[in-house]
Amino acid sequence: MTVRGAPAIGASAAFGMALAAQNSDAASVDALIDDLRRAGDLLKAARPTAVNLAWAVDKLQDIADSGEFSSPDDLREILLAAAQQIADDDIRINSRMGALGAGLIADGATVLHHCNTGALATVDYGTALGVIRAAFEAGKDFHVLLDETRPRLQGSRLSAWELEQLGVSYDIIPDTAAGYYMQQGEVSIILVGADRVAANGDFANKIGTYQLAVMAQAHKIPFYTVAPTSTIDLSLSSGEQIPIELRDPAEVTTPYGNPIVPAHFKALNPAFDITPHRYLSGIVTENGIARAPYVESLRRAVAGEQV
Amino acid sequence: MTVRGAPAIGASAAFGMALAAQNSDAASVDALIDDLRRAGDLLKAARPTAVNLAWAVDKLQDIADSGEFSSPDDLREILLAAAQQIADDDIRINSRMGALGAGLIADGATVLHHCNTGALATVDYGTALGVIRAAFEAGKDFHVLLDETRPRLQGSRLSAWELEQLGVSYDIIPDTAAGYYMQQGEVSIILVGADRVAANGDFANKIGTYQLAVMAQAHKIPFYTVAPTSTIDLSLSSGEQIPIELRDPAEVTTPYGNPIVPAHFKALNPAFDITPHRYLSGIVTENGIARAPYVESLRRAVAGEQV
Repeated sequence: MTVRGAPAIGASAAFGMALAAQNSDAASVDALIDDLRRAGDLLKAARPTAVNLAWAVDKLQDIADSGEFSSPDDLREILLAAAQQIADDDIRINSRMGALGAGLIADGATVLHHCNTGALATVDYGTALGVIRAAFEAGKDFHVLLDETRPRLQGSRLSAWELEQLGVSYDIIPDTAAGYYMQQGEVSIILVGADRVAANGDFANKIGTYQLAVMAQAHKIPFYTVAPTSTIDLSLSSGEQIPIELRDPAEVTTPYGNPIVPAHFKALNPAFDITPHRYLSGIVTENGIARAPYVESLRRAVAGEQV
Repeated sequence: MTVRGAPAIGASAAFGMALAAQNSDAASVDALIDDLRRAGDLLKAARPTAVNLAWAVDKLQDIADSGEFSSPDDLREILLAAAQQIADDDIRINSRMGALGAGLIADGATVLHHCNTGALATVDYGTALGVIRAAFEAGKDFHVLLDETRPRLQGSRLSAWELEQLGVSYDIIPDTAAGYYMQQGEVSIILVGADRVAANGDFANKIGTYQLAVMAQAHKIPFYTVAPTSTIDLSLSSGEQIPIELRDPAEVTTPYGNPIVPAHFKALNPAFDITPHRYLSGIVTENGIARAPYVESLRRAVAGEQV
């Protein structure tokens, strides 16, 4: 959790591979590739849900496995350049998703946002918060309700800080108040990120996303996830195959070292949930806003076609 | 917030009136009644949402207004006895609701509960948590998921403590995880309390109740409120007329004195929400489990008939 946010995890994993190559004292290309494989396995074991981790590791591993290198140092240099490329691409991709998604936010709208999906969750700019940022930079006048997002409070601690920096109008709300504001007719659109999107559009995201989706449907509020194609995992046919990380209950009972109950009190702490694609209005990718049927639109977006 | 929980607020208000009578130096019954009226207005202004406050104040005011008293001390004594009667009744009523509601919890069930509705929210025993307690005392084998209930964490701080004392199996969950466990098929029934029930069955309760109701319906999970008839306000035809208390945003940003964000970060803090009656499977009162149409069943329950 030193690095969090699917795109930031992806770029960090790529630099982790480049760093493993630098730190390896392998004297041959083959020995270096062996070291890389061990480093990749270690990196992949760090977090199960966000696919960007495995995506970035595999991308650098593929370069090592498939290329012709004159020396270990040649491979080291190429891997570092590839990691830098992933990081540079992330900024460009986020900026592109921002430009595409900004059109979803109308003047006078109130946007509900969950967790943190901004510059602090990516290399820079952000996914769902990047859309909000792009709409703000385009001069739109709107308000943002930030779910505080228990247990780790990424909404109040990170997203609120980012919107403070940008000057975007916002209020933090307890996660318990999201339905209240929808019922009041005060939520125009809901924007969230994604940690992994399956081929059919089901997606994993921060715990609490699924219930927002159910409520969005009950209140007929448009509900979008903003996800670069690096987050789309076409190898999984549905969200049921996405592993959910169960984290330490102490994150619930003792948030950031402040105990709110005695240490022996029992708690559960699933870190993510799966939102079935039928709740989605669309998926904002860098190649366009994918719409149902997602099996078709996501396949095209991942292939680099405009959707 | 020194006293919280609708039934506890009601009993405290009754003793507040009795205490105002004791503290008044009025030399005549009329002067004492004037002092009582001022005390009643002050007490009623303390909290707007829970109707038990006004219910108890009015009950003691009615005794003062309608009786014949030989002296101010005679009235003082009668008011103290009336307050004690309200407190005694609360325990008896909760015990009765527990016995009636326990039948809703099946062996092997998982009960989802919001906020605190136990002995700490009433004079003793509890409303929704009283039903859970009665089922446990009847030897049923079940598990309870306790919404932590941000911002004031009554679920983790109070309900978990009560279930620890009783030995009931439970886990605290972040409010964001309620939908996840419903989606997993792990929630058999949802039990909540109420701060005020309108004549049509719409009810105010702790923020976050409404969204549980929406999710319960989406997952076809039975959803009950447990409310003594003192919480039913037949003067209001629907929940839209129930005032919602907006509390200090510092409860969100600085829970119990622990700042989680800088003090200037903006937040909203509605303390209650309204759940429309169409989401309810029933209302457990001391006079039976009221079912739709609630206009009819609640009228009868308030009149003391068995429903």
